Amino acid sequence: MGRDLDNLCVNTIRFLAADAVEKAKSGHPGTPMGAAGLAYALWDRHLKHNPQDPKWLDRDRFVLSAGHASMLLYSLLYLYGYGLSLDDLRDFRQAGSRTPGHPEYGLTPGVEATTGPLGQGFANGVGMAIAERWLAHKFNRPGHEIIDHYTYALVSDGDLQEGVGAEAASLAGTLKLGKLIYLYDSNDVQQDGPTISFRENVAQRFLAYGWRVTGPHDGMDIESVSLAIEDAREQPDRPHLIICKTIIGYGSPHKAGTNAAHGEPLGENEVKLTKERLGWPYLEPFKVPEAVLQHCRQALERGKARQNQWQRKMEAYAVVFPEETAQLKLQLEGRLAKDWEEGLAEILANSKPNLSTREASGLILNQLASKVPSLIGGAADLAGSTRTILKDAGNFSADDHSGRNVRYGLREHAMGAITNGLALHGGFIPFAATFLIFSDYMRPAVRLAAIMKLRVIYIFTHDSIGLGEDGPTHQPVEQIMGLREMPSLIVIRPADRAETLEAWKAALRRSGGPTALILTRQNVPDLDRTKLADASGLQRGGYVLWQSSGSPQALLIATGSEVHLALEAGRMMQEKGVESRVVSLPSWELFDAQPAEYRDSVLPPDLKVRVSIEAGSPSGWEHYTGLYGARIGVTKFGISAPGEKVFQYFQITAQNVAGEVLKLLAGGSHEKESSPGG
Amino acid sequence: MGRDLDNLCVNTIRFLAADAVEKAKSGHPGTPMGAAGLAYALWDRHLKHNPQDPKWLDRDRFVLSAGHASMLLYSLLYLYGYGLSLDDLRDFRQAGSRTPGHPEYGLTPGVEATTGPLGQGFANGVGMAIAERWLAHKFNRPGHEIIDHYTYALVSDGDLQEGVGAEAASLAGTLKLGKLIYLYDSNDVQQDGPTISFRENVAQRFLAYGWRVTGPHDGMDIESVSLAIEDAREQPDRPHLIICKTIIGYGSPHKAGTNAAHGEPLGENEVKLTKERLGWPYLEPFKVPEAVLQHCRQALERGKARQNQWQRKMEAYAVVFPEETAQLKLQLEGRLAKDWEEGLAEILANSKPNLSTREASGLILNQLASKVPSLIGGAADLAGSTRTILKDAGNFSADDHSGRNVRYGLREHAMGAITNGLALHGGFIPFAATFLIFSDYMRPAVRLAAIMKLRVIYIFTHDSIGLGEDGPTHQPVEQIMGLREMPSLIVIRPADRAETLEAWKAALRRSGGPTALILTRQNVPDLDRTKLADASGLQRGGYVLWQSSGSPQALLIATGSEVHLALEAGRMMQEKGVESRVVSLPSWELFDAQPAEYRDSVLPPDLKVRVSIEAGSPSGWEHYTGLYGARIGVTKFGISAPGEKVFQYFQITAQNVAGEVLKLLAGGSHEKESSPGG
Repeated sequence: MGRDLDNLCVNTIRFLAADAVEKAKSGHPGTPMGAAGLAYALWDRHLKHNPQDPKWLDRDRFVLSAGHASMLLYSLLYLYGYGLSLDDLRDFRQAGSRTPGHPEYGLTPGVEATTGPLGQGFANGVGMAIAERWLAHKFNRPGHEIIDHYTYALVSDGDLQEGVGAEAASLAGTLKLGKLIYLYDSNDVQQDGPTISFRENVAQRFLAYGWRVTGPHDGMDIESVSLAIEDAREQPDRPHLIICKTIIGYGSPHKAGTNAAHGEPLGENEVKLTKERLGWPYLEPFKVPEAVLQHCRQALERGKARQNQWQRKMEAYAVVFPEETAQLKLQLEGRLAKDWEEGLAEILANSKPNLSTREASGLILNQLASKVPSLIGGAADLAGSTRTILKDAGNFSADDHSGRNVRYGLREHAMGAITNGLALHGGFIPFAATFLIFSDYMRPAVRLAAIMKLRVIYIFTHDSIGLGEDGPTHQPVEQIMGLREMPSLIVIRPADRAETLEAWKAALRRSGGPTALILTRQNVPDLDRTKLADASGLQRGGYVLWQSSGSPQALLIATGSEVHLALEAGRMMQEKGVESRVVSLPSWELFDAQPAEYRDSVLPPDLKVRVSIEAGSPSGWEHYTGLYGARIGVTKFGISAPGEKVFQYFQITAQNVAGEVLKLLAGGSHEKESSPGG
Repeated sequence: MGRDLDNLCVNTIRFLAADAVEKAKSGHPGTPMGAAGLAYALWDRHLKHNPQDPKWLDRDRFVLSAGHASMLLYSLLYLYGYGLSLDDLRDFRQAGSRTPGHPEYGLTPGVEATTGPLGQGFANGVGMAIAERWLAHKFNRPGHEIIDHYTYALVSDGDLQEGVGAEAASLAGTLKLGKLIYLYDSNDVQQDGPTISFRENVAQRFLAYGWRVTGPHDGMDIESVSLAIEDAREQPDRPHLIICKTIIGYGSPHKAGTNAAHGEPLGENEVKLTKERLGWPYLEPFKVPEAVLQHCRQALERGKARQNQWQRKMEAYAVVFPEETAQLKLQLEGRLAKDWEEGLAEILANSKPNLSTREASGLILNQLASKVPSLIGGAADLAGSTRTILKDAGNFSADDHSGRNVRYGLREHAMGAITNGLALHGGFIPFAATFLIFSDYMRPAVRLAAIMKLRVIYIFTHDSIGLGEDGPTHQPVEQIMGLREMPSLIVIRPADRAETLEAWKAALRRSGGPTALILTRQNVPDLDRTKLADASGLQRGGYVLWQSSGSPQALLIATGSEVHLALEAGRMMQEKGVESRVVSLPSWELFDAQPAEYRDSVLPPDLKVRVSIEAGSPSGWEHYTGLYGARIGVTKFGISAPGEKVFQYFQITAQNVAGEVLKLLAGGSHEKESSPGG
């Protein structure tokens, strides 16, 4: 009877998926049908969760890395009582529904991560497992194991082909993340057909990473999968890959085992035949036998009981460890301690003058870390160069779960996705650092942070040709503008150490999405704030830094290290009787969010002589200069030479800035306006 | 004596590197000093090359994947007679020198690939090895082995941590690329210190990929390394990883074996001490003992003799196989056969109307492939969806080196870098395909193609929210503009099948850099060219597609699928008596390269009422609209719903286009101009 019921449950998942894809006329039926048994074995026998509180801290995490199999997850969420209705399933892939094409974090209760771009979920899980170990080490006390959960994921052939997954797997092995248990849905088929480009020995590879690997198990056999999970749970010394052989599109007479079942509806008739083949008596779509619902929904009571049990543990803990309880609460809620800003001003006041902004950032980060325990993170083998080492805070490692420095190795992409996992787990404001140029390596993960509106901070240093000798492969050109194009990401490029402090404050305060700090390698002068506007203007994105006495004839708009050139040019012109205003505009996103009155007060609409200065691609700066103005920047790849030489080579100099202004004032602008990119 | 001379040679390499870094006051001395013996063993005993003809087709390729060790390569190029002088070495990392911070392809003779961003060179080599096998299969005849060379690379810990390297390694194993021989400089140190984040079993991992692995060898022992290479050369059944243990910064009393030797000069005194320690009697920098130069420069005679020998083979081949010889020459010179455009017009004329541009592209690509044998490529598991399967052309595989479809698996990043390798080898116009959104996964490789000005064609389909149900993770927003920001890359987004054909022609004709074709998933109507301008206008980047009878009051500028909305809006407004002009602007780069007269004729400078329409980020379109105009686009992440619904959701409709024009004409533009992003 048990087996029959199990089969009925699994078939219910299969046909909810097939029916929903059919109704939507698009989607991926094959993987839900093939992997339904794996997921069911996990959810029914092992997953610790309370559907009524999908945010319960000590729940097990389940990541559907193969996000295209979203209907598998939605079916489970429906059956296990997460509040999805059958109508939600009928609305699969429709505007405004809670069942979009790929699972979306924040939209559907029980979805732990937005997945779809393959490999990302794999690495997210690694971040979650780091989070669990770190919090457990920090907060658990003997007899008070308040944090103790597993991270599971369902991963596909595609997840294992993507480099980001490989990077994360290697790190997970190094860190011996034993409570990470991944079910590998090995069905030998991908979008284009059989996995002919993937002939490696996956088991051997993961053993090489330091994982435990079992299988291949019969993924269609629930008991066997369940036993494998049980076995993995009992050996928390290293991460686990459970290899399960499955059949994509299982049951479909004409499509099972082929890519025809992968990315499109089976077709009405084929669904019918599949139902016949699997002995499913219901022809009407979205049929859920009462016995199935009754069985699955027991999870509600079970989950409630488990969470209650934990709640009592938590209460006992709170009595004995009130401070820890308060701290844990603070971290989980993403709040900052009242005194988080304390000491920041002093740090800068006492530091050497004219620091590079990366250097200033390093001092600030360390001070912040002393007040904000949830700040943890690291770099992709550039912790020293990016000045992101948290001093005396240890490395998170297999032997030391208290470390706050995560040493990612040269793995930017996994760093980005693991950082997302830390944020998704909760309890952290994670940061990730590398050279700005290598933000390209992690761009898909940055985008997912933006989509999920995760509170993540990127520290991208060596932010322009100013980095010098490393040359064109290392000198960013299009990266700053490219990051600005990304929705929901706030990009801030401070000009000196005072602005760097303000940038960090803005990043810390932002809870609704990621922030990228763009920092110099080279030293920059301190802007003399006794004569210039206060750096707190950064909070509004841009502000009038300086203005010569008269009514300005020209606007100089700059960011970061080029603000100093703008200022120099402004003063140079003043001596020649040309009045100008210098605007420091470290963050487009913050500035554009200001009321029009403020923006107009900074950039007076009637003032058309505008020159932007930024050591990056100038294309896009028409956003502020219009076509009438001029844009000074870098329009081709850089060169290897000392930084100042490279600036000269690209004519990013105060002289040139002044020259452009004078040309515009002399009325030489008409050509410019008519020839946008020539 | 031989050993002494070898040691002298190796020490010469070491100190040229240390001295050059010292003089430049920046750079990476440690890896050249540690890996000098590996490189010398290869270059002195095995590498088939002719320094006087660095472009000789049948030379072995050597890729310095660890590009930061550039001084290792420059030292070799100097010693082996590639035409570099000691003064070139003294100019290391200076403006205009031939010895930039990282090796630059096209700048320095003998540099096979621009490297530095780690993992890329690893994957480039895989592309070169595919190229060799393919050309050998196509052109070699029994007794006429005119193509028969190895691809070597020196790879570092960092190369093996990066996902792109892992992806490429897995594919290389699957393809059994036996003439690929990689020396792994395993020194247990990286930029941030010991390789504590990299505890995997590399040998086991590569065995899992299907490589042969030997070692760890003593990388400081030239004989042992040389024997390992010999051994690898004799077993061409699978790719080879030769693990060599070395000591970073070898010889430095205080820095050897530590990251202090990695990324900065040793310091004057430390160099002195190192010279003492290694028994190097010359205190003056850049000293090359005569015996060393004499020994190494024998490569000139040796190389000349080898190439002459090959030349005779080639001549014999040319006699027996004149057609093949002509074809090989054509491919190597990157020329197209005279009839390459034949049949293209017919293909479209005979196809169904109103195709998606991906569909049109697929037909065109297949026709082109029949005339251009050098066109080979593939997709990252989206060959079907991107319509890039070359029919009846086979898959390149371990068993079939004639295949022209490269099945990359779900490995966009490796695909990008392998594609670069194919182009670098010569003989190919390679293409690479995936969804536009996943161009993010391969961006660092695209950038390197642009830096190296490689003739590579990207086919990026599913180019907007129009892809529909797959939702925000799959809908590009910032990607088109992000690609436009990249120097040297030409981006073309055609509007219908006729423009798609023109786009392909432009891509094929371009020999000086990469081209990205941006194509729809959804069907688009054919523009009726009997009433509208000819699609050949695409060759100038943008052209006047349509204009209502009177003098235009407004300009509608659009690309791709949105050209149809612009046209609809224009006609709609005409009925209301508003005259407008519709400009199809598929390629900013091509358009901006036109003379000002042409650009002004398309976009009359006095016509300020301009609206851009593109289903992507509108930020940047001020480049053409100025601040006065309006920009219709997508400013946040997409949603999962049928494509048309998503267009409606974002108000990218003809109605809205017309509405924006009318607003501008009514003078409602002042706010817009003053509030650039509000």
